Amino acid sequence: MLVVQKYGGTSVADAERIRHVAGRIIRRVRQGDQVVAVVSAMGSATDDLIDLALQVAPDPDPRELDMLLSTGEQVSVALLAMALKALGQEAVGLTGQQAGIIAQGRHYQGRISRVEADRVRAELAAGRVPVVAGYWGVNEQQEIFTLGRGASDTTAVALAIALGADLCENCKDVEGIYTADPRIVPTARKLKDIAYEEMLEMATQGAQVMHNRAVELASVYNVPILVTSSMVEAPGTLIRGETELEERNRVRGIAHDLDVAKITVRRVPDRPGIAANIFEPLAEAGISVDTIVQNASEDNLTDLSFTVSRADLRRAEQLMPEICARVGAPEWSSNANLGKVSIVGVGIQTAPGYAARMFRALYDAGINIELISTSEIRLTCIIAADRVHDAVRALHDAFELERPDADV
Amino acid sequence: MLVVQKYGGTSVADAERIRHVAGRIIRRVRQGDQVVAVVSAMGSATDDLIDLALQVAPDPDPRELDMLLSTGEQVSVALLAMALKALGQEAVGLTGQQAGIIAQGRHYQGRISRVEADRVRAELAAGRVPVVAGYWGVNEQQEIFTLGRGASDTTAVALAIALGADLCENCKDVEGIYTADPRIVPTARKLKDIAYEEMLEMATQGAQVMHNRAVELASVYNVPILVTSSMVEAPGTLIRGETELEERNRVRGIAHDLDVAKITVRRVPDRPGIAANIFEPLAEAGISVDTIVQNASEDNLTDLSFTVSRADLRRAEQLMPEICARVGAPEWSSNANLGKVSIVGVGIQTAPGYAARMFRALYDAGINIELISTSEIRLTCIIAADRVHDAVRALHDAFELERPDADV
Repeated sequence: MLVVQKYGGTSVADAERIRHVAGRIIRRVRQGDQVVAVVSAMGSATDDLIDLALQVAPDPDPRELDMLLSTGEQVSVALLAMALKALGQEAVGLTGQQAGIIAQGRHYQGRISRVEADRVRAELAAGRVPVVAGYWGVNEQQEIFTLGRGASDTTAVALAIALGADLCENCKDVEGIYTADPRIVPTARKLKDIAYEEMLEMATQGAQVMHNRAVELASVYNVPILVTSSMVEAPGTLIRGETELEERNRVRGIAHDLDVAKITVRRVPDRPGIAANIFEPLAEAGISVDTIVQNASEDNLTDLSFTVSRADLRRAEQLMPEICARVGAPEWSSNANLGKVSIVGVGIQTAPGYAARMFRALYDAGINIELISTSEIRLTCIIAADRVHDAVRALHDAFELERPDADV
Repeated sequence: MLVVQKYGGTSVADAERIRHVAGRIIRRVRQGDQVVAVVSAMGSATDDLIDLALQVAPDPDPRELDMLLSTGEQVSVALLAMALKALGQEAVGLTGQQAGIIAQGRHYQGRISRVEADRVRAELAAGRVPVVAGYWGVNEQQEIFTLGRGASDTTAVALAIALGADLCENCKDVEGIYTADPRIVPTARKLKDIAYEEMLEMATQGAQVMHNRAVELASVYNVPILVTSSMVEAPGTLIRGETELEERNRVRGIAHDLDVAKITVRRVPDRPGIAANIFEPLAEAGISVDTIVQNASEDNLTDLSFTVSRADLRRAEQLMPEICARVGAPEWSSNANLGKVSIVGVGIQTAPGYAARMFRALYDAGINIELISTSEIRLTCIIAADRVHDAVRALHDAFELERPDADV
């Protein structure tokens, strides 16, 4: 079969690991599979390059930042291709440009518009392992666009789609997707499989295993993704389309995120256009708003809360006086020390009792809920940051996620 | 005027120096000149990347090595462009590919075949400073070719030719070309100008200031090169076409090189084809032979000596037994501890007395001459490595190079 394997920065952090990855690819080729490798920058290389840029310019130009950061993946590509050839495997390193990754949009936050995979196909046909730079592409004018942190996952999925690959493997320093973070919940269990939608909610809610856009893209084209370890031989977790929706109806995992700040606007006159007046200035400032909750209105006044990442809080706070003046709200407040915990599972919102069981478990653990938000397959509570780990453990217990039979 | 400035690795070795170079370029632009900057990799970046490659593969694949090494210049390009923009100067970083540097030949030793300078011209017309990656280009298939160590100089000259620039400036950590190495001869004097041919001999003979191919290319298209300091404001040395050949007839400088090894083949039967039989196997092994001297023959037997770099000596020695057997020479010997010292100046070979004065000066200093070789504008003596510095000083004195009036 044809498999696109993506190796993250930890998997190619030094020469020894690169040689290890090369050996892993060669074993796969000898089993009769065709392999395309997509690689990230080595270890902390991207952060090191950003540090260097900040030494040169306080606010580095995004176009030049893209030119700088794209070198990180190119280094990994060259080294892995060398390692493969040194071990006797025909291989060819390809930059984002050479691999036909066509990108567009804004610098430092580009998007893949299409993949011109002829070169990669030709190299495969010639018996070579194409080693492709993740994280960036070029537009028609040869301008370099990076695709956002973690976007090497997206490069791999986009290539898998363009090549009609049978599988996209995400080879990481973890063995798969767990019911909760194993560092917090010792009884956390590795899942055999998980639906795209569940994975998306796990990732959005802070599970940090797969880049969200990669999962979205894979779900649109129905490309299965195997999350697996590049270090040890062990079965991973298959992310795939939902096949047994009716039977599932269960909590699949607990996600959490410690980077939550909340702003509450109080006593807003409740009339049409309020939300637009509040959120448009934030969007224009490039501030990404996560959860939004508007409380029941009284005397035609309403309280509206929303969450942002801690890094965006200060800029959001600077905009609040003007926003409050515009919507006629007398006051606002903020809280920087929050986190969130979520239960995720296809069908949980249509099945009775999950919300009640979640709230009861948090109450029993003495944890106060600040905000609640829901989606089709997720229930999220915003709570104090210093209680998030307790909450994850309490919920993992409450939903008995350590029990193997919970995994269909 | 339009000037192409090349900044070497030492000039862009860290963030502070990059900001300094940015300021230097901006001052030049404010004087009304158009500037194109060509940059090398930062400090030891290229060596660091080669070290990394050797950790991954004992004999790295040249194609992948080119992909790896080209990132060094791209990092410098991005950082210098950022620094210029941060200081308010419109600028644009360009990879070798974006700048239209078209290369061909063998990987790791590519040659520039042409420059498609439309993009660079358009950026200049738009008021931006193009910052271009030295040292590499791409072929028609987007394959990356590095151009050999030190070849950023060649990129700068090729760009200057393609753009019809008025001047190519080579901005270095030295102030110009000296009559001899100032670390060895305290009275060494900076030259106001030097002819291309003289510079070529100075460089080939070990002066290490300018890349030879850059000087050759500049001489063909008659592009003047100013060698100048990127650190201090001081007049540099202009490398240019010879304009006053008849008047010159003088020694312009003393070059030296400490990396010389000699092999002598003794009592070779002197018949046609001997030289080919000796040097073809060396060439096939990629060993570059420098000076070749064949002594007067006696009894139809001749002694033949040649020099190689010390790094190539062992491989050459391994080939010698077979070579001697082939040409019927009974014995050979080698000496790894040699150096060479040269006097360089247009017309010195046609003018009488220079050779005698050189040999007398070395004799007076008690220095024995192993081999002598000459060109139109150079006289070279191979001597013991540990006497090379003494020889440079003796010759600098003998030809009175410290006297300003020696420099027309």
